[in-house]
Amino acid sequence: MAVVAAAGNGAATSSKPQRATVQDKKAILDKVDCFIFDCDGVIWRGDSVIDGVPETLDMLRAMGKQLVFVTNNSTKSRAGYLKKFTDLGLNVKSEEIYSSSYAAAAYLEAIEFPQDKKVYVVGEVGIQEELDLKGIAHIGGPADADKKVELKPGMLLEQDPDVAAVVVGFDRNINYYKIQYATLCIRENPGCMFIATNLDAVTHLTDAQEWAGNGSMVGAIRGSTKREPTVVGKPAEFMLENIATKFGLRRDQICMCGDRLDTDVLFGKNGGLTTMLVLSGVTTEEQLLSPDNSIHPDVYMDSLAAMLEVKLPVNA
Amino acid sequence: MAVVAAAGNGAATSSKPQRATVQDKKAILDKVDCFIFDCDGVIWRGDSVIDGVPETLDMLRAMGKQLVFVTNNSTKSRAGYLKKFTDLGLNVKSEEIYSSSYAAAAYLEAIEFPQDKKVYVVGEVGIQEELDLKGIAHIGGPADADKKVELKPGMLLEQDPDVAAVVVGFDRNINYYKIQYATLCIRENPGCMFIATNLDAVTHLTDAQEWAGNGSMVGAIRGSTKREPTVVGKPAEFMLENIATKFGLRRDQICMCGDRLDTDVLFGKNGGLTTMLVLSGVTTEEQLLSPDNSIHPDVYMDSLAAMLEVKLPVNA
Repeated sequence: MAVVAAAGNGAATSSKPQRATVQDKKAILDKVDCFIFDCDGVIWRGDSVIDGVPETLDMLRAMGKQLVFVTNNSTKSRAGYLKKFTDLGLNVKSEEIYSSSYAAAAYLEAIEFPQDKKVYVVGEVGIQEELDLKGIAHIGGPADADKKVELKPGMLLEQDPDVAAVVVGFDRNINYYKIQYATLCIRENPGCMFIATNLDAVTHLTDAQEWAGNGSMVGAIRGSTKREPTVVGKPAEFMLENIATKFGLRRDQICMCGDRLDTDVLFGKNGGLTTMLVLSGVTTEEQLLSPDNSIHPDVYMDSLAAMLEVKLPVNA
Repeated sequence: MAVVAAAGNGAATSSKPQRATVQDKKAILDKVDCFIFDCDGVIWRGDSVIDGVPETLDMLRAMGKQLVFVTNNSTKSRAGYLKKFTDLGLNVKSEEIYSSSYAAAAYLEAIEFPQDKKVYVVGEVGIQEELDLKGIAHIGGPADADKKVELKPGMLLEQDPDVAAVVVGFDRNINYYKIQYATLCIRENPGCMFIATNLDAVTHLTDAQEWAGNGSMVGAIRGSTKREPTVVGKPAEFMLENIATKFGLRRDQICMCGDRLDTDVLFGKNGGLTTMLVLSGVTTEEQLLSPDNSIHPDVYMDSLAAMLEVKLPVNA
């Protein structure tokens, strides 16, 4: 219980993490009104749902908890990403998904992006669909996938002077035309913003290997503009602020649940959230308990399904 | 004279720069055996040779000076870049050109790149041609210009395990296939090097505007590998070391002549070279003499052609 009570004030980091007891789990449920889930390694592994997770989600929903499924995938909108859940037999609403494509649109809405301005998109359909839902004008994206810069003496590319933000998300059709167009907007349109959905080095296009992620697309634009982007996806602060505001919650009423210490747990701790590590993904108990690790979640358990224990009779 | 005498030891930076007198110019010629020229703004401006420069180069050659023309353009080999000089009526040998494509090949030669290993090239023909001249095997480059990653479940890209270096130069045909291939080599081939011809944010593909430079291509690979490249072109130390070794010269016997304070002059000063600023390019005398500027060349003059003054009778 001490561990949970200390959530969010940093005191828990000095003691060795303890595997969550049933009391710890009940304390979490008493305190937390919203669970933010990293998906890979928590909800599913590759193409398989982790045992007991659907039942756990059902239990949390029955208790009235708000669930948020976070992904840095920007290639799909929330509606597009929903298919992955449905295909896996998970009953999730698109409003419960927080994709980095949505984060970009939500950010522009939050800063009251001017109605008469446009966004230039480096990225795939997800960003466009989310911008459409917010009524924000945009150009670029898939429409520029096959454009080439054919050089002639004196040639120049003319950027639309109404572009006031460049949003950069993962783009399998990244090309020099898009890089130059985005660079011109950022360098030459006064005040033009540079927004990155995320900076992930690698992404999981297929299970067979790790693929270069949006770190590449953002790196390309950073390299030609010498400007740092505003990041809106995980682990940016904006997402937490946006979720806390939307549901009217204090930070410690929100629990970040993930399988990675240096991203998920650290992100939650830095944001003042309650943090939960599950061992169903990339982190082992040995790594967690190693003296080399200083990132301690408030609670940890084998998998999210271990939360079902709170439903068992006390002496079972 | 005091300015020249102090060259290379940094003492000159504390006093206000003085426009070079005929004595300063003669002192430079007494001391310096090799001139390294930045080209744009020094030799030519856009498509026109700067007045008096061909005669100055002839004079320096007649005095036995070694001339080196430096460019961060990696899209052409030295032989390919020669055409630009010839078209402008300048009499230059390809061995006098130091392109960043050549720098990449010279670097691999200097570190004794293994004969049984290969280079993966992100870039255009210049790098390939220079690697061929050194007998270094390579793959990628223009051959991968139209390759696409067509996703299927379980798909993976398999990199050649013999790739022991990735060389990244400016590439108008940058695409996701190349980014992923380069990323795999750097992340998964043990010891694989990551070499950048240069990090220039912008380049001059046409005179009509600035174009995103190799900073974009390098930024893309940096973003997915989280590795820093070894830079071989300007302003990397390797080029100076390579030139000094090749001609058997001390650093202060080499003069860096350029039109930019924060690149050319700073590069020369950091490398212990004698430094010459010409006002025929981007830097004005006002900028040079401003109290805000702390980068002081050993000598400065209106243009390289001002060196011709040393041939005039003393009282002319």
